[in-house]
Amino acid sequence: MIISSRSNERVKQVRALRDRRGRDATGAFFAEGERVLRAALAADATIEQVVIAPERLSAGESDLAAALERRGLPVLEVTPLVFDALTLRAQSQAIGAVVQQRWQSLTDAGRRCWVALHDIQHPGNLGTIIRTCDAVGGDGVILSGHSTDPYHPVAVRGSLGALFSQRIVRATPDVLGAWAKAAGCTVIGTSPAGSRDYREVDYRAPVVLLMGSERVGLSEEQIRTCDALVRVPMAGSVESLNLSVAAALVLYEIYRQQEGG
Amino acid sequence: MIISSRSNERVKQVRALRDRRGRDATGAFFAEGERVLRAALAADATIEQVVIAPERLSAGESDLAAALERRGLPVLEVTPLVFDALTLRAQSQAIGAVVQQRWQSLTDAGRRCWVALHDIQHPGNLGTIIRTCDAVGGDGVILSGHSTDPYHPVAVRGSLGALFSQRIVRATPDVLGAWAKAAGCTVIGTSPAGSRDYREVDYRAPVVLLMGSERVGLSEEQIRTCDALVRVPMAGSVESLNLSVAAALVLYEIYRQQEGG
Repeated sequence: MIISSRSNERVKQVRALRDRRGRDATGAFFAEGERVLRAALAADATIEQVVIAPERLSAGESDLAAALERRGLPVLEVTPLVFDALTLRAQSQAIGAVVQQRWQSLTDAGRRCWVALHDIQHPGNLGTIIRTCDAVGGDGVILSGHSTDPYHPVAVRGSLGALFSQRIVRATPDVLGAWAKAAGCTVIGTSPAGSRDYREVDYRAPVVLLMGSERVGLSEEQIRTCDALVRVPMAGSVESLNLSVAAALVLYEIYRQQEGG
Repeated sequence: MIISSRSNERVKQVRALRDRRGRDATGAFFAEGERVLRAALAADATIEQVVIAPERLSAGESDLAAALERRGLPVLEVTPLVFDALTLRAQSQAIGAVVQQRWQSLTDAGRRCWVALHDIQHPGNLGTIIRTCDAVGGDGVILSGHSTDPYHPVAVRGSLGALFSQRIVRATPDVLGAWAKAAGCTVIGTSPAGSRDYREVDYRAPVVLLMGSERVGLSEEQIRTCDALVRVPMAGSVESLNLSVAAALVLYEIYRQQEGG
């Protein structure tokens, strides 16, 4: 039976995951799209419930839905309109799943680099940074303060599946600082007030790239925990770069140096 | 008199600018925030109407409002709730203005580089690319195909005022190609199928960086118009970078080479 009502109880449970309260209460989130779900499978994520809009399924999506059903996963069939109501800013997807969040702990120092974000506000920026961290072979993203939720629909979409391959960690600044020291990580902060160009610093692994919020950047206290403070040069009239752009520039410099490129 | 109703005729005229139809019909858009309006003033943009929420104005915003009023500009005073209704995804701003769009023509080759975007979909990406192009001292952004509107509220906000300092041009691919050739520009395309690493190419000015849509990238036809096709190396599991991130990496490489850094 294909559900055509948003007030269906099972639909309401999935819809509740659009809000942080619903996600925090269940420890789950809704991931949509074939590419993202294949990334979830590849990363061995725990899928609780599959949702499909049968009349919209492409051949590849049908195969994926069948494969998920063969694993014994419950599959909810809904109309396209109901599917669109499951997420924010509908994008005409046909397949999605309720997936368990996976928060990891700070253990080893990692192979290349971490991005630590304090008070990051925009889920779109967070998703993009997770995606770029994956692209350079980074280890994961550490969130502190009042950061936005990496399982926000916009962050999930923006990460393009990297949310599953990257380690996602929550830590207080104190715990992060103690771990970085014990693990032998070099902590690099970014700030317009940084004394060194981001291409002049030695990023020998393991590195933690520490960035503050879109609005205020790093605090004085956080700056004191950094081994180096770098800036990205600017030649125009705007005061700052987008946070995910600044992160990408430094991450690609780390990648270049560590690969000897 | 402070307007407290969204159905006020003047409020409705400003609200209509949230939609592309309203912007296309009037050739105007709504820009909000002190920083963005100061950028508009610095760039000598044509301001038609100022809107303020007096009870929310900071000291700096009050000064700006007074300065605009002294120029003889009409100032509409509204309640905070009405102000929030003027834009998408309200951010508790207190000052904004209706500003004339300024579309420029392709004339000179420029000093450093242009970004040409075909079928770009997301206004957030477009705003970020305009901001980054300003940051590297670039000349402007050229839009072709079914590209999103640089005067979309999300693009305006994301550009952080760079929308006013950068030249914004609309051109068909044919006109763009003919101009680039006549002006002596090197056209560099980006693609995962690019044969050269983006750091291995010579970006002597003037350069046009050509990028396709988030979903499909450059077409075969567009690729044939490029003097070189570059790719950004990736070491992780995701298939591609966010468009504004890829643009930023190449733009900063152009900037580095042209500055001899």
